[in-house]
Amino acid sequence: MLETVYVLGGGQTRFGELWDYSLTDLIREALDQAIGNTKILPTDIDTVVIGNMLGGETAEQAHLGTLVSGLLPHHPPALRVEAACASGGLAVHTACALLESGKAETILVVGAEKLTDVSGDFVSRALMHAADAEKDAPSGLTFPGIFALTAAAYMHEYGITRENLSLVSESSHRAAVKNPYAQFRKEIPANVISKSPLVADPLRLLDCSPISDGASAVVLSTRKESPVRIAASSLASDSLSLTDRSSITSFESTREAMNRALKESGLDRNVIDYIELHDCFSIATLIHLEDLGYADAGESIRLFLDRDTEANGSLPINSSGGLKACGHPIGATGVKQVLDCFKQLTGQAPSQVKNAKRALAHNLGGVGATCTIHLLEAL
Amino acid sequence: MLETVYVLGGGQTRFGELWDYSLTDLIREALDQAIGNTKILPTDIDTVVIGNMLGGETAEQAHLGTLVSGLLPHHPPALRVEAACASGGLAVHTACALLESGKAETILVVGAEKLTDVSGDFVSRALMHAADAEKDAPSGLTFPGIFALTAAAYMHEYGITRENLSLVSESSHRAAVKNPYAQFRKEIPANVISKSPLVADPLRLLDCSPISDGASAVVLSTRKESPVRIAASSLASDSLSLTDRSSITSFESTREAMNRALKESGLDRNVIDYIELHDCFSIATLIHLEDLGYADAGESIRLFLDRDTEANGSLPINSSGGLKACGHPIGATGVKQVLDCFKQLTGQAPSQVKNAKRALAHNLGGVGATCTIHLLEAL
Repeated sequence: MLETVYVLGGGQTRFGELWDYSLTDLIREALDQAIGNTKILPTDIDTVVIGNMLGGETAEQAHLGTLVSGLLPHHPPALRVEAACASGGLAVHTACALLESGKAETILVVGAEKLTDVSGDFVSRALMHAADAEKDAPSGLTFPGIFALTAAAYMHEYGITRENLSLVSESSHRAAVKNPYAQFRKEIPANVISKSPLVADPLRLLDCSPISDGASAVVLSTRKESPVRIAASSLASDSLSLTDRSSITSFESTREAMNRALKESGLDRNVIDYIELHDCFSIATLIHLEDLGYADAGESIRLFLDRDTEANGSLPINSSGGLKACGHPIGATGVKQVLDCFKQLTGQAPSQVKNAKRALAHNLGGVGATCTIHLLEAL
Repeated sequence: MLETVYVLGGGQTRFGELWDYSLTDLIREALDQAIGNTKILPTDIDTVVIGNMLGGETAEQAHLGTLVSGLLPHHPPALRVEAACASGGLAVHTACALLESGKAETILVVGAEKLTDVSGDFVSRALMHAADAEKDAPSGLTFPGIFALTAAAYMHEYGITRENLSLVSESSHRAAVKNPYAQFRKEIPANVISKSPLVADPLRLLDCSPISDGASAVVLSTRKESPVRIAASSLASDSLSLTDRSSITSFESTREAMNRALKESGLDRNVIDYIELHDCFSIATLIHLEDLGYADAGESIRLFLDRDTEANGSLPINSSGGLKACGHPIGATGVKQVLDCFKQLTGQAPSQVKNAKRALAHNLGGVGATCTIHLLEAL
């Protein structure tokens, strides 16, 4: 990082089916929470960055940067960024660039998505805009279908079972019980997950993150100090279509983003105390942990069998509930991950990891087509 | 600027109703042109930024950064930005921040839009996503309707005539004749413009920029040198809705972006030799010239009455044909403006301004809700 970028804090709405909220309502609440929690003045914000994927399709609203700016009294310069489900992480990354370039000193980063005002079929089709419209969508694939292909290949290659997959979702649901912002605050045992309705073989309903509304916001600054800084902000891309990959059980974008982040920060992966992982599907969690270098290929299930991923385990992951149980309002997810890492490093997390000093937020777009990684460090 | 950002050059497709091209085809052609014209290797590009507004709505394709990245052999990190019709200028601005931050050294900036594969009604409604979905769209307003309100107010306030407005479009059409990339290469006299079909009183069909397909690309670098640099890159926002403004005959975002650009560059507005202006509607041209400080309020029509805006005049504007006659593929426009400024500064413009040393690209989103300004300087 060319400059020290401090995370001042942030706020979020509850994630869920929020039928009483418009997209603007969601953004306003996250913005108010962020300003209230960080105790900055609205006019301290000199730039706004928002991550959002489907504002035009699901809320008839593009041009969201300026919409957020208009909620502030002084209309600061504003932009929207998009990289499908990695839109939130991309917003944080873009904000870091603006801060490091000197173009901004204090940025409000917002992530937001409103998905439940349209039908499930409409959302499924709109979400497929994250894949390749010429190579993937015409075959009738949906995202559960795409990840089902990776799950089938992974299970075949490494011999894990259907019951193994359920342990991943069980862990997320157990964690979310304590998170007041989570969409599903209910423990669900693995055997129930294994018997939930089939979506795309071998994936079942409770392997999949839900359709959610929600917004989140963090304030980043080079001018105002805080006990937490961003130690690295990395972005990596891969082919949009899974059909252009040599392997479908590993995502090169995660590997590259992790390498870039470790290099930028000078940190070793073993000093990370907490991970917010992009668990869009149970199988994705297993793949990500291997791509991040925390398990050998085919071995990550052991972390769940041994309960290493719990808040008091050796590799705490998604104590917030993750995408699976906290919810996945597309653009909001990546920003909320950074907020949850901040909470862990400042002792404010609902399931607190003891003495957490460094945290990692991993946000994925498409089927590993975009990856952002942010490393946060307590000072 | 924290670093010297060089403009290495670029390329574009023809703008128009390009029914044989998909969105990906358009992007591929602009990318190939840009790489060919700048003589860089594809692998010199370490980051991709694309400006696009309606990929999801009109081409079922979001996640466009990664789509562009996938057209390159090495899949560099990529992002999409959006600020309605200012998406292209915003892409250049974001690229400047990434270069100044040290996160990138050579960036391919693309602008692209595919609008003619869907109906005109569908596009009109999708374009309204650039305005406020809660305050503007429900009233039935379209963009021609919004700019008609500004035109009526301006004509009432300053006493210009319907025939005056036609001079603005006449000038753009005269210029576009020489531009091989222009959508309309035909002179249209003012009296024909005044009699063209009424769209939204007082605006007629030939006051309005067209619905266009197209893509454009420029390569910016801090590592490779070139005879042209970016002297300033500014971004400003205003309220999304016109209903929240104190005046509708002047756009504060243009004024603020211009002040920021002049301050950043240390240049005076009088040293600018060429302007690419966001002439989405004839009335917008008149307002912009006043907001940029090149005419007093209500006086800019004199520049057209005196033909000062021709390539050999005292204030050359839109010798490319501008949005009106070269075309307006939303996300492509702001990038193409920077490309046309580059051509003027390197003696490659179809209507060349003699000894042009400094040029300005002015890109607007919504009804003055976002403005980007880029100042380019020959070294």
